Amino acid sequence: MQRRKFIQQTLTAGAAATLLNPTILFAAKQPKVRVGLIGVGLRGRNHLDLCLQRDDVEVIAIADPDTKSAIPESQAMIAKYGRKRAVEYTKGDEDFLNLLKRDDIDAVIISTPWEWHIPQAIAAMKAGKIPAVEVCGATDLQDCWDIVNAAESTGISLYMMENVCYRRDVMAVLNMVRKGVFGELLHLQGGYQHDLREVKFNDGKQPYGGGVEFGEKGFSEAKWRTNHSVYRNGDLYPTHGLGPVAMMTNINRGNRLTALSSVATKSRGLHNYVMSKGGANHPNAQVDFKLGDIVTTSIQTANGETIVLSHDTNSPRPYSLNFRVQGTKGLWMDDFNSIYVEGRSPKAHSWEKDEAYMKEYDHVLWKNYESQATGAGHGGMDFFVINSFIESIKRQAPFAMDVYDLATWYAITPISERSVGEGGSLQQIPDFTRGKWMNRKPIFALDELGY
Amino acid sequence: MQRRKFIQQTLTAGAAATLLNPTILFAAKQPKVRVGLIGVGLRGRNHLDLCLQRDDVEVIAIADPDTKSAIPESQAMIAKYGRKRAVEYTKGDEDFLNLLKRDDIDAVIISTPWEWHIPQAIAAMKAGKIPAVEVCGATDLQDCWDIVNAAESTGISLYMMENVCYRRDVMAVLNMVRKGVFGELLHLQGGYQHDLREVKFNDGKQPYGGGVEFGEKGFSEAKWRTNHSVYRNGDLYPTHGLGPVAMMTNINRGNRLTALSSVATKSRGLHNYVMSKGGANHPNAQVDFKLGDIVTTSIQTANGETIVLSHDTNSPRPYSLNFRVQGTKGLWMDDFNSIYVEGRSPKAHSWEKDEAYMKEYDHVLWKNYESQATGAGHGGMDFFVINSFIESIKRQAPFAMDVYDLATWYAITPISERSVGEGGSLQQIPDFTRGKWMNRKPIFALDELGY
Repeated sequence: MQRRKFIQQTLTAGAAATLLNPTILFAAKQPKVRVGLIGVGLRGRNHLDLCLQRDDVEVIAIADPDTKSAIPESQAMIAKYGRKRAVEYTKGDEDFLNLLKRDDIDAVIISTPWEWHIPQAIAAMKAGKIPAVEVCGATDLQDCWDIVNAAESTGISLYMMENVCYRRDVMAVLNMVRKGVFGELLHLQGGYQHDLREVKFNDGKQPYGGGVEFGEKGFSEAKWRTNHSVYRNGDLYPTHGLGPVAMMTNINRGNRLTALSSVATKSRGLHNYVMSKGGANHPNAQVDFKLGDIVTTSIQTANGETIVLSHDTNSPRPYSLNFRVQGTKGLWMDDFNSIYVEGRSPKAHSWEKDEAYMKEYDHVLWKNYESQATGAGHGGMDFFVINSFIESIKRQAPFAMDVYDLATWYAITPISERSVGEGGSLQQIPDFTRGKWMNRKPIFALDELGY
Repeated sequence: MQRRKFIQQTLTAGAAATLLNPTILFAAKQPKVRVGLIGVGLRGRNHLDLCLQRDDVEVIAIADPDTKSAIPESQAMIAKYGRKRAVEYTKGDEDFLNLLKRDDIDAVIISTPWEWHIPQAIAAMKAGKIPAVEVCGATDLQDCWDIVNAAESTGISLYMMENVCYRRDVMAVLNMVRKGVFGELLHLQGGYQHDLREVKFNDGKQPYGGGVEFGEKGFSEAKWRTNHSVYRNGDLYPTHGLGPVAMMTNINRGNRLTALSSVATKSRGLHNYVMSKGGANHPNAQVDFKLGDIVTTSIQTANGETIVLSHDTNSPRPYSLNFRVQGTKGLWMDDFNSIYVEGRSPKAHSWEKDEAYMKEYDHVLWKNYESQATGAGHGGMDFFVINSFIESIKRQAPFAMDVYDLATWYAITPISERSVGEGGSLQQIPDFTRGKWMNRKPIFALDELGY
């Protein structure tokens, strides 16, 4: 009944139900989703772990060229759960294409270096596999069109794995937005403010810190992620900040992002770090890091809200996703868990702590799944990502975060690069739905959905 | 000795010492500054009170067309201090011109509705009087050039009364910036986030709230300020946020603002307020308020910092000037008095309260003048504004906030209006110093200055 109502709603709404290819779906009463993982580094193994905990998932194969660490660690994890050893695809960067040729895989989880996400997801769709794709920004705007076109031409949907949409406080705030606590939304902020200097540099052995190596001499993320800071200047990592506020403002579902401009500060933090930890004689002291230390992006929406994103990863600072959700009746601010609601907050013009609101508006998903989520990665958020992906496939239901969301959110990166490159110029944001946003309805974490 | 050193410094630095007209300055050992006040509403009387407390100021005349309240309240205040009754100029909006004709006045303090600041200041300079001018934004960009040209052609300097530059925590942070605590500055934020609905509307009798009248039927600021929200859309009130961070980044003194873009949300708050307090049948329910509820302005500087200003005056929210001061070694945030300094903060990646820093870096001006400042307006800030204005005149020294600062800060308003009007387009910010910023040296609140 709940499910029928939901599917009816989404179909009525012209949602992307047709993007699930019926030929690969299951009639069985207790279907299992057969999964391959492309990329089983630290992040991929987090998803692997969550898959292994589920009775409704079979892990069939894993692809990763790192046979020293990623592959054996994954197989050990699989063995620990008493599951069948996964078939390995380790012969270089392109061996994932052979994984995609298998006929016993329904879906793939892509947790690879950023520049691989879109080509691998397109290859998966062309091979009839449903991809779940990790977060990042696109390297080129055309990639965002290419992935939309691939989804539409193959009829295979795509799941965008933005875990922060499932953060417990973020979901409570989404609940408050939907219940009108903040009135009509006006201004939202988000971002990625995270001192990543010990992620961008390490000693080539441990994942975090201990040296100033990156690229070929680096390990884990330093191996590939840091180069984006060498060669690019823009908001390189927009989705953690944008995804949650996009859900609150119904982006691509009755609203859309229309334009942005980005400004970047000078670049100092990464060079300073190399100098202080490696000395002036270290070869990396000569590297010219293009990424401005703080990139601020102002986004406008069709419905008249503004969204400001901050990308701030090269400097010493406390971690913060910079959330602010402000409407005509009040506002919530991530930093210091602060809220003010007119007529409810005890003292006019004064913040109160958000604790009571977080309890009162705790999202039904968190109430229902708290025990399963506890212990999953990133404070439980990662559980919901995998759960939503798998449950949607089992129910043949549209994904709550789909290819249009991925294209829109990923696109912020190349568009912000262009804006920064033009001194902060105004840039239009394409409508990747080609007008469907006017009729699509919000489906993310609806109370009646149950997953 | 101190003074000679200072004047030498500023002259060497090519500072605007020539903008003080020597003919009106004093050779007496204990000079008094003879002052006229143009505008003696609530704000003007705050300055009047501070003038009356000083032995080195004589209040000669006051100009204000409001003979019901402003003039009698001012004379009562003057009488309370046992001072000589001020000569009154009350015959309409233009009678201040007659005040300016007096030959027994050295300086005027202008605290009038925003649209009068620049024409009155120009008239003052042309009459050989030194103007101190209250905060606001310009109504037109050309006005900013006109006032610079008037100062340069008359040789009369101007004092910009931005009181937040003297806020105790802001001055401690300026002190920290100058001592290198934050390293090299990267990103700063400021703004004016203040629920002004009860300032923009009242019952025509009391200054704050009690009704939904404004314009002719309003009282005090509602009489004139609200119309700016009816007809304009941009950052209407930039200087409280910008002034302090401009001092920290040495704007017009080794640095300058180069470009901005502004985005505005939809306008809801003022209409909603009229509807909820006055009902749909009140005539003001038909008013189309142009001012977006939240206006965000991204500014770039010649030295590669970014500055984000927020203007947010129509919605229920806690008061906050939104300050953030971030450099390569750490950052301070106004909200919740938060700071993080690498190598000093006890826990990596974690905020601490700024209390110990505020004590350690308390500015020498606050240490020296604490008892006089206590009880002055706005937490003591207003004392320093009047003190700096009067002491600079007595010492024939350049003003710490001068006509170039006024022009630059005021200009944000019309430039942001143009940007918002063009959908958030990038706008260049003029160099009102015509290149002098490259040689001018910072003089605001230097430790050795003493005022």
